[in-house]
Amino acid sequence: MSGEFYDDLEIRSADERERDLAEALPRQVAHAQASTVALARLLGDVDASSIRSSADLAGLPVMRKSELLGMQASDPPFGGLGALEPGAFSRIYMSPGPIYEGEGPEADPWRFARAAHAAGIRRGDIVHNTFSYHLTPAGMMVDTACRAIGCAVFPGGIGNTEIQVQAIGHLRPNRYAGTPSFLRIILEKAVELGVDASSLSCGLVGGEALPLSLRSELADLGCSVLQCYGTADLGLVAYETPAVEGMVIDEGVVVEIVRPGTGDPVSPGEVGEVVVTTLNPSYPLVRFATGDMSAIMQGASPCGRTNLRIRGWLGRADQTTKIRGMFVHPGQVAEIVKRHPEIARARLVVSGGTGRDVMTLHAEVSDGAGEALADAVRQSIQSVTKLRGDVAFGAAGSLANDGKVIEDARSYD
Amino acid sequence: MSGEFYDDLEIRSADERERDLAEALPRQVAHAQASTVALARLLGDVDASSIRSSADLAGLPVMRKSELLGMQASDPPFGGLGALEPGAFSRIYMSPGPIYEGEGPEADPWRFARAAHAAGIRRGDIVHNTFSYHLTPAGMMVDTACRAIGCAVFPGGIGNTEIQVQAIGHLRPNRYAGTPSFLRIILEKAVELGVDASSLSCGLVGGEALPLSLRSELADLGCSVLQCYGTADLGLVAYETPAVEGMVIDEGVVVEIVRPGTGDPVSPGEVGEVVVTTLNPSYPLVRFATGDMSAIMQGASPCGRTNLRIRGWLGRADQTTKIRGMFVHPGQVAEIVKRHPEIARARLVVSGGTGRDVMTLHAEVSDGAGEALADAVRQSIQSVTKLRGDVAFGAAGSLANDGKVIEDARSYD
Repeated sequence: MSGEFYDDLEIRSADERERDLAEALPRQVAHAQASTVALARLLGDVDASSIRSSADLAGLPVMRKSELLGMQASDPPFGGLGALEPGAFSRIYMSPGPIYEGEGPEADPWRFARAAHAAGIRRGDIVHNTFSYHLTPAGMMVDTACRAIGCAVFPGGIGNTEIQVQAIGHLRPNRYAGTPSFLRIILEKAVELGVDASSLSCGLVGGEALPLSLRSELADLGCSVLQCYGTADLGLVAYETPAVEGMVIDEGVVVEIVRPGTGDPVSPGEVGEVVVTTLNPSYPLVRFATGDMSAIMQGASPCGRTNLRIRGWLGRADQTTKIRGMFVHPGQVAEIVKRHPEIARARLVVSGGTGRDVMTLHAEVSDGAGEALADAVRQSIQSVTKLRGDVAFGAAGSLANDGKVIEDARSYD
Repeated sequence: MSGEFYDDLEIRSADERERDLAEALPRQVAHAQASTVALARLLGDVDASSIRSSADLAGLPVMRKSELLGMQASDPPFGGLGALEPGAFSRIYMSPGPIYEGEGPEADPWRFARAAHAAGIRRGDIVHNTFSYHLTPAGMMVDTACRAIGCAVFPGGIGNTEIQVQAIGHLRPNRYAGTPSFLRIILEKAVELGVDASSLSCGLVGGEALPLSLRSELADLGCSVLQCYGTADLGLVAYETPAVEGMVIDEGVVVEIVRPGTGDPVSPGEVGEVVVTTLNPSYPLVRFATGDMSAIMQGASPCGRTNLRIRGWLGRADQTTKIRGMFVHPGQVAEIVKRHPEIARARLVVSGGTGRDVMTLHAEVSDGAGEALADAVRQSIQSVTKLRGDVAFGAAGSLANDGKVIEDARSYD
């Protein structure tokens, strides 16, 4: 078993993990309130000592990536979210938006060593890292992980395919890190140039979706890969393990799945938006809504890691849509649903086409679905969206489990 | 005075520095012999304990960058020069050639913190680093220096000028690191876009020559810069200080100036090839000939640093030239001179033009310059280069002090 897990945190019992979280969360929330202007304001007089579990977090406000943009624009560079002065961070990054992210002085600040270890990266390995180190942190996420594990990095960066293939021939790196599509480009170019790239036997991939077909193509080319999921704001969120059954949640974050546009956790297994609270001391984010969709998986991973798993990336949560010239946000759909306790779940479907948008709220109700409720719901639609819309009732479970709150079904033929 | 120097090593007395070197050099030579295949072979049965000064080094063989290429090609990746297994390095780089370089696990492995400090970079600063992190180590040389100093790096990388200017507006970095020409591009773009880049008040530049005109243009644009000189094989070699009088040699290397093509030190002040011995434990290089030209400066720096200074980069030393279809190397000129003790210094001047190359050895002699010596020298030229050539005698000091051993004065009009 030695070396199978990165540390014992991965195989904690549910009780232990809950106990540890009940200690760590109040500390982190208090730290965030004390050390950052933004979370002091957002969390107001929340009693940090009362936030001891994922369920307790559900009562706190959610911060969306779109809000972060505005916060940073008015209070650069970190929108009041940095617990350190900018110059006390190790590195500062700039992601499209622009959104700025701070890398704290901790060892393995993005916690990527856990994902790298799960993907087979060990002390003494040589990791060919093709993530970029410039502007955004992907390259350094892997690099700092390799420092923590104690292996060498070849910082190949992006592009320069022939040079990278030449380096593989000379250096014989045994591990890859980067996007899966660039790995395919490299391995195919190696075949074309007659360079032996068989040293690259496994790798950690991320930054884009990994279709099953690509995963098996890469395996056929000699390199088996495991995925990780993280963001520049949060670092590692979840990672695949040799079991290849969903992604195990990182031990440094708390993940919730919420109804898009709200802060309300969905039922277990339901698809929704990934909301993350990190235990990162330098850049503490509490209930940060990533805009990514996923779902909690039932049961435990056969690999032996005991943390919850998510299903991986299932699309983007921001379903804001323009209907008859007006923006309709997922939060407005949630607002309509909230006015009618009879409705369990709902989805706004926009159909029609250019110039003749039709808006219908498909609502799951167990009982009470009559004309009176329909009238009331139509009135709510009008008052919340400033648009006329109809309602269609269905039984509980009639809506697909895909996290969609607004479905754009218009055709423009 | 506090904070003026990076450490006390910079202000050691000549005696102290000599004493320290007399301890460090034998240890390093013994380590290089014991830990690397290549230096064990190159240094043979040299008694490490006898190598206690720069003068002692002069008896050891020189290793040229061109030889390194061959050594690495036949024994990848490091040509037997790594004191660690490849996987025990922190990072491995690939410079054009390709030549591979290993970055050891030491803090500030390239010793760039000393140059960064001299250029004004301090704890808590924000450094906008536009050197590339990909393939070659320039970006990481500055990055690891900033880790050692304790300041934040914005890893901007190369290109993306508008995005980098936007970042300056938001992040307000107060220090720059990169090439001086890219700094000008950034500062001019900031003016064009109306972005306030005045935060960037000083910087560390390198990677290319810095003409006086560019230095003052940058100062006019608000950013005063100091240069550093290093290579991917060696790390920092020398750096400018606020005195801006030549470059002070780094405390982690021993620099000699030799006649190009040989291992023979030139007289103090004479221009020649920079040969460096590093005290780096992971990748120890002994008498590595850089191919760069410089000269030792007389006297001490007014800034208070006590180490020797060099004049900065004065061109490339590799003057290998094709004459009547045959290559003539600087080492062959040295071989001719060695056969005639009457000759103090010499330079082979090739004149003429296409199809009518004329080769003349200009030789400094104090006395004995007669027809007999001329005949003998002409014979040596013939036997060493397999080419006919003439000789012209001049008085001591008649040749320019520019390090040129072969001068190509042909015209091809």
